[in-house]
Amino acid sequence: MAEPSNKCFIGTFIHSKKLDELEYRHDTAVFVDSHGKIVAIEPLPSSSDQRAAAITAVYDHLQWRDSQTPIVQYECREGEFYFPGFIDTHLHAPQYPNVGIFGKSTLLDWLDTYTFPLEASLSDAAKARRVYTRVVRKTLSHGTTCAAYYATIDVPSTNLLADLCLGAGQRALIGRVCMDRVGICPEYYRDESPEASLAATRESIAHISRIDPLMEIVRPVITPRFAPSCTTTLMKGLGELARSTQLPVQTHVSENKNEIALVRELFPPALTGAVDDTYTAVYDVFGLLTDKTILAHGIHLSEGEVDIIVERKAKISHCPCSNSAITSGAARVRWLLGKGVCCGLGTDMSGGYSPSVLEAARQAALVSRHVAMGGDDRAKLSVEEVLYLATRGGAEVVGLEGKVGGFEVGMDWDAQLIGLSMVPENEEEGEGVEGEDGGNVDIFGWETWPDIVAKWLYNGDDRNTKKVWVKGRLVHERK
Amino acid sequence: MAEPSNKCFIGTFIHSKKLDELEYRHDTAVFVDSHGKIVAIEPLPSSSDQRAAAITAVYDHLQWRDSQTPIVQYECREGEFYFPGFIDTHLHAPQYPNVGIFGKSTLLDWLDTYTFPLEASLSDAAKARRVYTRVVRKTLSHGTTCAAYYATIDVPSTNLLADLCLGAGQRALIGRVCMDRVGICPEYYRDESPEASLAATRESIAHISRIDPLMEIVRPVITPRFAPSCTTTLMKGLGELARSTQLPVQTHVSENKNEIALVRELFPPALTGAVDDTYTAVYDVFGLLTDKTILAHGIHLSEGEVDIIVERKAKISHCPCSNSAITSGAARVRWLLGKGVCCGLGTDMSGGYSPSVLEAARQAALVSRHVAMGGDDRAKLSVEEVLYLATRGGAEVVGLEGKVGGFEVGMDWDAQLIGLSMVPENEEEGEGVEGEDGGNVDIFGWETWPDIVAKWLYNGDDRNTKKVWVKGRLVHERK
Repeated sequence: MAEPSNKCFIGTFIHSKKLDELEYRHDTAVFVDSHGKIVAIEPLPSSSDQRAAAITAVYDHLQWRDSQTPIVQYECREGEFYFPGFIDTHLHAPQYPNVGIFGKSTLLDWLDTYTFPLEASLSDAAKARRVYTRVVRKTLSHGTTCAAYYATIDVPSTNLLADLCLGAGQRALIGRVCMDRVGICPEYYRDESPEASLAATRESIAHISRIDPLMEIVRPVITPRFAPSCTTTLMKGLGELARSTQLPVQTHVSENKNEIALVRELFPPALTGAVDDTYTAVYDVFGLLTDKTILAHGIHLSEGEVDIIVERKAKISHCPCSNSAITSGAARVRWLLGKGVCCGLGTDMSGGYSPSVLEAARQAALVSRHVAMGGDDRAKLSVEEVLYLATRGGAEVVGLEGKVGGFEVGMDWDAQLIGLSMVPENEEEGEGVEGEDGGNVDIFGWETWPDIVAKWLYNGDDRNTKKVWVKGRLVHERK
Repeated sequence: MAEPSNKCFIGTFIHSKKLDELEYRHDTAVFVDSHGKIVAIEPLPSSSDQRAAAITAVYDHLQWRDSQTPIVQYECREGEFYFPGFIDTHLHAPQYPNVGIFGKSTLLDWLDTYTFPLEASLSDAAKARRVYTRVVRKTLSHGTTCAAYYATIDVPSTNLLADLCLGAGQRALIGRVCMDRVGICPEYYRDESPEASLAATRESIAHISRIDPLMEIVRPVITPRFAPSCTTTLMKGLGELARSTQLPVQTHVSENKNEIALVRELFPPALTGAVDDTYTAVYDVFGLLTDKTILAHGIHLSEGEVDIIVERKAKISHCPCSNSAITSGAARVRWLLGKGVCCGLGTDMSGGYSPSVLEAARQAALVSRHVAMGGDDRAKLSVEEVLYLATRGGAEVVGLEGKVGGFEVGMDWDAQLIGLSMVPENEEEGEGVEGEDGGNVDIFGWETWPDIVAKWLYNGDDRNTKKVWVKGRLVHERK
């Protein structure tokens, strides 16, 4: 790791001011201290002399020049800007090797055919190390500064994932997956009992608490896979664990119609004591619907379910790539937002095929148009809105609102430097292309800033993510 | 241009055998003569000695060793395979700078707000050269070996687009856009009269016929923009031109519900003599619905319209990126295929946001799942099916079936070399990544070939298109 430094970032900063509005701050300097915290944001004069003087004045005000800590300056070049790091609010690290492999399956057969065998195989430590190393590196390269991971039921490899995130500097929620129900979970990949599942979960929580006691980078998250995979005893135990530890919870809700029917069959209110036979009520009755709960999907939720989600202040991770790929449905995000649900985006690898939150944002925009085709034009999500979900919305979903997701004094510097290709005035014709690895966003020079951001949303990829920082630390750089 | 050579390609070749089946030919050699034609395809023995002997035997059989023409051998490396070049059956070259810029618009306001102003501005020759150079280069880099382009109403820049395609070696249909209707076309961007429109079209056809008399690489295509933009006089004239020249026709049909209503209003059967008031009947009555007609979109077609399309053997270009982006609707491709309509894929830039036919294929798969969510599970298109549409289907749409789109003796070598990243067994943890520019398809080594192709479909991009050939000529290579 590089020695700690105070940092001054100069250039254009773009972030969400509110759901439907991006703020563009040009000719600005953002000052980040050696702990990774933004300590000052200053507009700069246009002349370079005055600019240097203005920056020096801030250095003095911050007492940086008197300190032993070196000062490093970064300056945007043409076609570059800073954007908050992306928050991936839902993904399964062990499923990374299966991205794109789902055939024509839907949730329940997809789990049996593709997912459980791969996850089970990651009890092999070498294989887990290979896959997890790649997934952390890959998501960082796409600008994911924070990820809410599901691991597997295996404790050592779950703990390894936490170690790797901490080492690579990626903020992460790490969930050891709980699944103990006979008949739903295959025999080769199932917790032996509710007690064994709880003990394994506590073991993983203990490890993560040991390697990052202040939970600055990695945090444990209580992870009942989804209601059908858990016995009522396990659900009850996990709810008690959530209450006693005050840890976050992550699970799935209302992804697929057959899954919903299965929940109704497995958890009748007469058995659970829930207020009704909905999927959401099952989590609620077991104390798993808290203000720190991340519910993935929420496609087929009823009005009443959303009301209880809002009341409990639980969050929803919208996973459009996955929802389209395995034909789960089209989530009504506008409706959820209108009801007051806090929403973020998830890649949901490997139900989702892409490691990129930018792709998830793009698909969120497209899927919202498919919802709009159903009749309500207001369903469409704008460029600004999907980028809000990818940053500020995601931060709130993972409980880091006010800490990451935007550029404000007091927040941490979790950011990416975006660089786009400038199309030359006189490009040579014919074969052989220079600078192709700048990616697919071609800027001709006459675009407005909102147009530039739209072009990035729709054609951007990891080639445009030039550098990535978490808590002030440079965690990824394109060579 | 490189000197002509006979070429021998060795390795794995993957192409569509039929709509729902890819053929995998491993350890195979494909022999391409100096005219770019595939003259032999031979399975190879596994031992390298025997392999060399088998190749030499074919050289002798082809009398290549006696000829003055040099022989060049290409051999796939690990993670590489050959795939037919993609056919983009519908895109607007002048709109390339607007990719991703569409806001919440739908077709008719999108044309007025974004599209007509940009297209009109390309009467500036320098701007047209800059944009067209980029779009040809960009689409080639994504493996598009053949494209059906709309240019603008401007003849010199339309002719320039043909020159650039011929120079770069990209097969292309080049359409000078016809639009003369007052009230629909803006005053600043409209043909002066039907006669002027027809004369300009003939002028462009003459130029393209002059630069490529055998129409081996570039061909003119008669291009009424879409029915609403044309007067009945112009439509009639273009129909006569199509009959007398036997040239292909390209236009739009049934993309958007407001557009359909507009057609019904502008072309009442009492005026046109059409059999009914459908959009398709308007093209038919004017002789524009031929077996060489490419109809973009076809989202909201009626049963009767599809019947007449099948009867006339007209083709449909499915443009899923565009249809989702500007909220036009979800085309029922399974239904069209079932009715016997020949379908290909179009990027439809810049209604579509991406220059990539691979992205169009991916979105075709996803959009088909949104159609399936409506109730009919059979609507889903498989990996194999969307790649068929991108190659063989597209070839038929542009009238090149049997010539391009697959690997068969007698066909031209229009192909791409695909290369995927092999994940190392022991990857270093931490910062800095080597070989990221291999793209986002990570192969772990245990995947089947169908899984590898699925991974490419869902995460591949231009980084995976290592080399591209048209008619045996190397037209793109990644450095």
